[in-house]
Parts: sequence; C-alpha cells; structure tokens
Amino acid sequence: MTGEASDLGGGLQPLERPVPSDLTTLHPFDQATGIRAEGDHLTGATSDLYWAFVGPFGGATAATMLRAVLDHGERRGEPLALTVNYCAPIQRGGFAVDVRLVRANRSSQHWAIELTQAGEGVVATATAVFAERRPSWSHQAAAMPQVRPAAEVPALPNDKSSSWLRQYEFRFASGDPRFGATLNEQPASARSEVWLSDSPPRPVDALSLAAMADAFFGRIFHVRGGLVPFGTVSMTTYFHVDAADLAAEAITGLLGVADAHVFHKSYADQTAELWSPSGRLLATSQQIAYFKA
Amino acid sequence: MTGEASDLGGGLQPLERPVPSDLTTLHPFDQATGIRAEGDHLTGATSDLYWAFVGPFGGATAATMLRAVLDHGERRGEPLALTVNYCAPIQRGGFAVDVRLVRANRSSQHWAIELTQAGEGVVATATAVFAERRPSWSHQAAAMPQVRPAAEVPALPNDKSSSWLRQYEFRFASGDPRFGATLNEQPASARSEVWLSDSPPRPVDALSLAAMADAFFGRIFHVRGGLVPFGTVSMTTYFHVDAADLAAEAITGLLGVADAHVFHKSYADQTAELWSPSGRLLATSQQIAYFKA
Repeated sequence: MTGEASDLGGGLQPLERPVPSDLTTLHPFDQATGIRAEGDHLTGATSDLYWAFVGPFGGATAATMLRAVLDHGERRGEPLALTVNYCAPIQRGGFAVDVRLVRANRSSQHWAIELTQAGEGVVATATAVFAERRPSWSHQAAAMPQVRPAAEVPALPNDKSSSWLRQYEFRFASGDPRFGATLNEQPASARSEVWLSDSPPRPVDALSLAAMADAFFGRIFHVRGGLVPFGTVSMTTYFHVDAADLAAEAITGLLGVADAHVFHKSYADQTAELWSPSGRLLATSQQIAYFKA
Repeated sequence: MTGEASDLGGGLQPLERPVPSDLTTLHPFDQATGIRAEGDHLTGATSDLYWAFVGPFGGATAATMLRAVLDHGERRGEPLALTVNYCAPIQRGGFAVDVRLVRANRSSQHWAIELTQAGEGVVATATAVFAERRPSWSHQAAAMPQVRPAAEVPALPNDKSSSWLRQYEFRFASGDPRFGATLNEQPASARSEVWLSDSPPRPVDALSLAAMADAFFGRIFHVRGGLVPFGTVSMTTYFHVDAADLAAEAITGLLGVADAHVFHKSYADQTAELWSPSGRLLATSQQIAYFKA
C-alpha cells in the first residue's frame, strides 16, 4: 500500500474509529475493478485513475469481469482461461455485469459475462473457464528471456500522466517506447521486455495478471514509432499458476514480454508472456487489435 | 474434390439428371461441419469421419460454430477472432446451434454461439468477432520457419486410422509423433512443424483454418512420448487474412507450427501458427488443454 497515503493529503490525523476498510485500505486497482451487488444484479463503474485514450484501460475491464466470477457464490476452482471481447467504447460511469454459469463439471466451470451500459447496450463480453487444478507432471518448455534485473532498469517517467499509465511502473529492459511525431517507414521491432508492477505495489494475483496482460502499448506504436488510432478487440489470457503457486512466488512485479506476428488490413495481433522474477511463467495472453495507419 | 469418387464405389454410371449438390459435391469436411435450419433454430450432427478419442474432432466443432455465423443472414464482414470453449464431451448425434448477434458496429460484429445436445445441456460455447477489413499499412513481423517443402517430406501413414486423422494429410518436417508404450522421463521438444492438408484436398478457407488450428496432436504426447488422457478446454484463433487474401494464395495445404510454453497442474497451453507455402501467416491460435500424466 506504499504511496497511497499521499492520495489522502498526507496530513490526516489518526482516525478515532474504524472506517469501512474499502475506503482506507483498498488498493486503487481493487477500487477500480470492484463489483457490488445491487438487488439481484452486479454493478461496477469506470475509474478515472485507469482511464485510457477513449475508454477505460482494457486490463481493468478484464479484471472487473474476472472478479465478477471470482466473487460469485457458485464459483469453484481458479481462473484457467479468460477471453474478453471489447464490443464498443465504454463510457465513463456505471455499468451492469451479468454473470452466468453456463456449465459446471466435476472439476471445471464455464462462465459467460456481459457488461452493459444504460443506453449503450452490451459493451463487453467475456467467457471464463475455472478449474480445480490437480497435481500432475510439470514441465516449463519455455525459458524466461535473460534481461537486466528490474532494479538496474530505469522506470519510465510517467508521473505526469493523467491516465492508466500512472497506475503501473514500467521498466523497459528492451523495446522501450520511442514515439515521435512522424511514423517510421521501416518497421521497428514489435518486441518489448518490460518489468511491470502496480503503483503503488500490490501482490500479484489472478486479477492483476488479467490486467497486466493488457498493460502493453499497442505494438503498432512500436513498429511505426508513433501513436495511431488503436483499440483491442479481443484478448485471451491463460493462467498457468493457481493461488498457491502465486502465494509461493509472493511478488508485486513481473516481467512482461510482448510481441506481434502481423499487421494487416487494419488489424494486428499481440502476444504476451508474464514471468515471475524467479523465472516462472505465470500467464500467457494474446489479443487482436484494430489500428489505423 | 480429388479422391472423393472412390467413396461412391468408382463404378457409377453417369447420372441422368442433376442431384442436389450437397449429396454429390460436398467435401467431407463441409458435410461434417454443415448446419441446417429447422424451424427457427439451427442444427448439426457429429460426423463419424471426424471422430476423435471421446468426441468429435475439436476443429470440426470450431468450424461448425464458425459456419453458423458465416451462414447467418445478418453476418457482415469476415472472421477475425474465434474462441471456442469445449464445455463437456459431445455425444454422437445431433445438436442445436444457437447464434446471437451481441453487438453490431459500423465495421465489426460480435457474436455468441452455443452448441446444445438433448439431455446434455450446453456442450460448447463460442464467441466470434467479424470485421470488414480495410486496407492499411502492412507488416509481417514473424518469419515462416525454414523447413523442407511438403513434397520432400513423407506423409504420416494414417490410411488405417478410423478417426479424424484420416481426414488430413500430415507431413512432419520436424517434431513427428514418436509415441511409445512408456512415457519419457526427460521431456522431449513440444514443437512440431507439419504440412497439413485436407484429404481429399480442399481449398483453404476460414472454416478449414478454424479446424486446422486444432489439427495438432496434444503437445503432452510429444513431450512425454506417449498417449495420455487429453482434451482441449478452450481455443482462440485469430484470422490474419480475408477471403480475398486466401483466394490470392489459392492453396489446399499449409504449414502448421505447434508449440507449448508450460505443462503444470493438469493443464498445458498450445500455440499454433498456420503458414501459407508462400510464407504468409494466415492464422495464429492458442489453446489450453487438460492432461492426465
């Protein structure tokens, strides 16, 4: 929770009686992705802290939809797969979250989630698979890229930002953003290796993995060296660890590796790997995004 | 359509009058993934030709669900993203396909599809994004692996198979299946490079891309060198070409590259790339699968 006190002004007197914990101890990420029950349905609201160019940071939306299942009374097991479809721009303000258990098996569940705004209709859909993960033979075929440790890499100066960028600390080990006013003729590399953590720090869990899977700049910005209209259309994340594995890692930061295969006819893909500093692959993700360039 | 005549016995006399085209000219893949309207809903049926270990070949299911949207009167644009969740074993026989247009935008559509069997409930769900793809700056960041041409690689002897395997020709340029009775202690490579085509040959389109994205053997079989219980749980495929691009390629075969990142607590991922022989990346896919080993 480091750093959060400053948001309160820094000069507060000790409180005489306990206040609801959600007002004092909730990390901004948990506030931004919070869900509450209103009657027989769930609601949430966009967060200005996690605002992106023309809507909320897509990672916050993904985490919100995942949380709606995680908090559900019938939920069993842990997140295994999450696909989020960003159907339309999400407006500032409130939204309803509809959650449906489509199928429950002995050790897995299939969920469908829809996010709706008044007057806007459905703005996002998701499907999620939850599973009780049993012990098995284990093998990590992929190897973590060898990069400089986070402490040796300068943080991106984002403290002046008014957007979601400020809610993360980015330390680019490679492929740092160098965006200018004119676009590259020759494409630069689409690959970035970046140490990511919430700011202020927050223990990494499935919710933050779902969000960090989207915490990369559009690959089109990197290859063209500048900002162009861009938006994620669909994102799928696989979770390769459960809560016990994450508890054993006990981390607040991770190495994100983002890349792309192809940019064609206004759409491009993005791949992402999220690595624990110990070299464990926590999650993999891919997304398809619109661009105009 | 080469080879299909042999299914009819080879000694048929010329027909005196036209017969419905779906009885004489449909490729087995199109028969297996066919959809028909019955009243106000859509139905299909599993195909014994595309049967896998305990249910239909997942690629056929994916193609069937994609076809239900492709054939829909309100469909605009071309497949961009398809996520299929395999909720439960699909039994031999018929099923209903429910298709819902969740959101239509100016140049994209979001669809939800459910596959239901009587007495079984929902056995598969899918979301699909369709888009009218506009010209843009293009760049293929990924390069096709350098492998031997298909003609120089022997075909996997699968003519004795009674399963979906027989509906494809597999020519392994690397990572061919070497499955024995005992499992490897030391994991072998998870990577395979395989020339794939329908058998008999069929022009590659979005439907066959959706199926071929699943036409790899479980990566767990490769790393452990033997067969173990295995099943795809969720698969997401991105289409990087439209129908015009595919028409320009005019191919019946492609190079599939499959790999995996991690096998842990009974689940493993799989990545797949589908390459045109000319070196063009047609589609990328990932899936998460259950295994018992």
